Amino acid sequence: MNRRRFLRRGITLGAALAAGQAAPASAQSDAAPDDPSKVLGGPRRPYGERSRFETATRKAVRGKTDEVGATMTPLQDLHGIITPSSLHFEVHRGGVPDIDPRKHRLLIHGMVDRPVILTAEEIKRLPSVSRIYFIECSGNTQSEWRAPTLKNVQGTHGLTSCSEWTGVLLSVLLREAGVQKGATWIIAEGADSTGNERSIPLAKATDDILVAYGQNGEALRPENGYPLRLVVPGWVGNINVKWLRRITVVDRPYMTRMDSAGQPNLMPDGKARQLVLVMEAKSVITFPSGEQRLPGPGLYEITGLAWSGRGLVRRVEVSTDGGKTWRNAALQEPVLRFAHARFRLPWRWDGREAVLQSRCTDETGYVQPTLADLVKVRGLNSVFLLNAIQSWKVAADGSVHNVHA
Amino acid sequence: MNRRRFLRRGITLGAALAAGQAAPASAQSDAAPDDPSKVLGGPRRPYGERSRFETATRKAVRGKTDEVGATMTPLQDLHGIITPSSLHFEVHRGGVPDIDPRKHRLLIHGMVDRPVILTAEEIKRLPSVSRIYFIECSGNTQSEWRAPTLKNVQGTHGLTSCSEWTGVLLSVLLREAGVQKGATWIIAEGADSTGNERSIPLAKATDDILVAYGQNGEALRPENGYPLRLVVPGWVGNINVKWLRRITVVDRPYMTRMDSAGQPNLMPDGKARQLVLVMEAKSVITFPSGEQRLPGPGLYEITGLAWSGRGLVRRVEVSTDGGKTWRNAALQEPVLRFAHARFRLPWRWDGREAVLQSRCTDETGYVQPTLADLVKVRGLNSVFLLNAIQSWKVAADGSVHNVHA
Repeated sequence: MNRRRFLRRGITLGAALAAGQAAPASAQSDAAPDDPSKVLGGPRRPYGERSRFETATRKAVRGKTDEVGATMTPLQDLHGIITPSSLHFEVHRGGVPDIDPRKHRLLIHGMVDRPVILTAEEIKRLPSVSRIYFIECSGNTQSEWRAPTLKNVQGTHGLTSCSEWTGVLLSVLLREAGVQKGATWIIAEGADSTGNERSIPLAKATDDILVAYGQNGEALRPENGYPLRLVVPGWVGNINVKWLRRITVVDRPYMTRMDSAGQPNLMPDGKARQLVLVMEAKSVITFPSGEQRLPGPGLYEITGLAWSGRGLVRRVEVSTDGGKTWRNAALQEPVLRFAHARFRLPWRWDGREAVLQSRCTDETGYVQPTLADLVKVRGLNSVFLLNAIQSWKVAADGSVHNVHA
Repeated sequence: MNRRRFLRRGITLGAALAAGQAAPASAQSDAAPDDPSKVLGGPRRPYGERSRFETATRKAVRGKTDEVGATMTPLQDLHGIITPSSLHFEVHRGGVPDIDPRKHRLLIHGMVDRPVILTAEEIKRLPSVSRIYFIECSGNTQSEWRAPTLKNVQGTHGLTSCSEWTGVLLSVLLREAGVQKGATWIIAEGADSTGNERSIPLAKATDDILVAYGQNGEALRPENGYPLRLVVPGWVGNINVKWLRRITVVDRPYMTRMDSAGQPNLMPDGKARQLVLVMEAKSVITFPSGEQRLPGPGLYEITGLAWSGRGLVRRVEVSTDGGKTWRNAALQEPVLRFAHARFRLPWRWDGREAVLQSRCTDETGYVQPTLADLVKVRGLNSVFLLNAIQSWKVAADGSVHNVHA
């Protein structure tokens, strides 16, 4: 692609765009100076905040009260692969607990030789690792099985986020506790008022699971499990148990509420797949996406995110003709295992209706399916784990819409 | 190292530590519940905040008013390699400008065929890249030339931070403007009330410099240049011009105020090295570091950060005997060019006085010097660009002190 043509197009469009913009409602009544270089600026601050002109927010979905529900990440507003901690999606069913870290303890017991109780401070003293991982709620995109219902990518895909997590490998703690012969699973329990419990195979627990206390350089945010959470690379969101207070080593899955009723995956024959734990490969275009508007024909950079619970994203293809033809998008380096991968592809829009799609292939060779192919296998009784290709229709007027194509 | 011994030690120490802790002054008067699982938690929020129990802040240094000065990143409190945007160091001499992005423009002119004026929105439309880079103020560590003066790592090294930056390669913009024959430098100018201007060689400008609008997933923070800044990988902090409003293509450095008087590097003979632009390899241990206290002999994980303006950190060595012997520390993967690298090394403290040091070697083979070796070359007239090995003395009582060793 000729990068210069982007710019020339951009300049042409610029004046039109600027003219069409109204002051955001959130701006304070006092206008910013026309020439900031003529005015003394504001003071330094011990803990910074974003510009008053920035208005991206998490959007609330579901839940009858603010304590029981979720907020979704504004993927359409984000850059790169790191999700700002203030915009990381949240799901909680008993509110965000107010935890004093000095009172908090993690108990590891059950089929172990030496039960241990650890404070957050003790855990911070241990050998640590930091890794950039996505976490996706298995309920992400659940509205889209039968028809396109939500209007923008925040609604359809905003229950995934990506952070640099820091903590201790759970394997270190389990080795110290001394896992007994015959143990095959663990139960992880959170300290919130729902007491979220999930069963996790011991093989994963002794592989790459983190007991995390850090998120994007600072402490975990309260809605992300402060002061301790599990980070279970690539596995369903709520198994990354937040506000972690107990790990019980056991010899079978316990089919807790959130293992079973909380994770319905009904198949066409009415039986439920249970303990489906891995988030399969998925991707979505964040620009252009639903409710955005292209100001006119010309060159654009299509961009979005791809991820896989199996590890590495190997390839992201983009179609601008509803899946008839595909081109490889560029992946932002470094591509990291179990992390969001940012993809980008230049596209010349000719002003006619177009359907944009992205398709992720992961390191296992698994290819993100079409919705039709997914439904062939899964039927329409499912709620969770919809990882199908997302379609955005660009109408002739430049408006972008969620469609099933 | 036997990871289990860490844990055993940690458990022993835990009770003592917990007993010794008082409530932080910042905690609200209402205590957190003893058992948060018995209480409905707090509501979801559109834009999250950190726990009320977290108190890490940037620390103000220098400057007669809050508008003229700097704040330093609390490196001792951070995890991993990403600096939270709220804790990224700031330096400004005319305050943080209040900029309405719809009013802001970037002018590119001078020795170009086609001068251009771009809005921030237009720049966001162009092909973008995201990269994790450190930015270090050349004044970082400037207090330490003659004697150890500042007590902790925030004071000695807190003018470096690391973010995922997103923007457009400056080369794209310059190519469009059409750089004329004979042009060899650019002058970048900020829109704050000091009108910071820096001269930058055209070769760097057409290589890897970004015109950035994104920081850790969201818009640049105001104190980091909102809505546009240069990110100049590996080069001195203030050349990463914030609040960028003008680039003038020229045929020589202009020796602006910040090119010359603002960057004094006096050599022993009284002459000044000017336009020293690259931040050489440097590292520092953040735990254990000044003003921290080890509760007793035992196993600890020494950790810290290393970086180089020449690109990759190849190796970090740690000494616990004041530089007599060295061991290789583990580097957190992936190690990225022009980014902070997190290093870690287990250490058994025997309870006797010890002097801890770290030493960075970069991809060019350059080895971070001792202060004595640095002073041999640079003398003691310098203010900026002190990248010598930092020493922390662990006293027999476990207290940690800034020393020259």
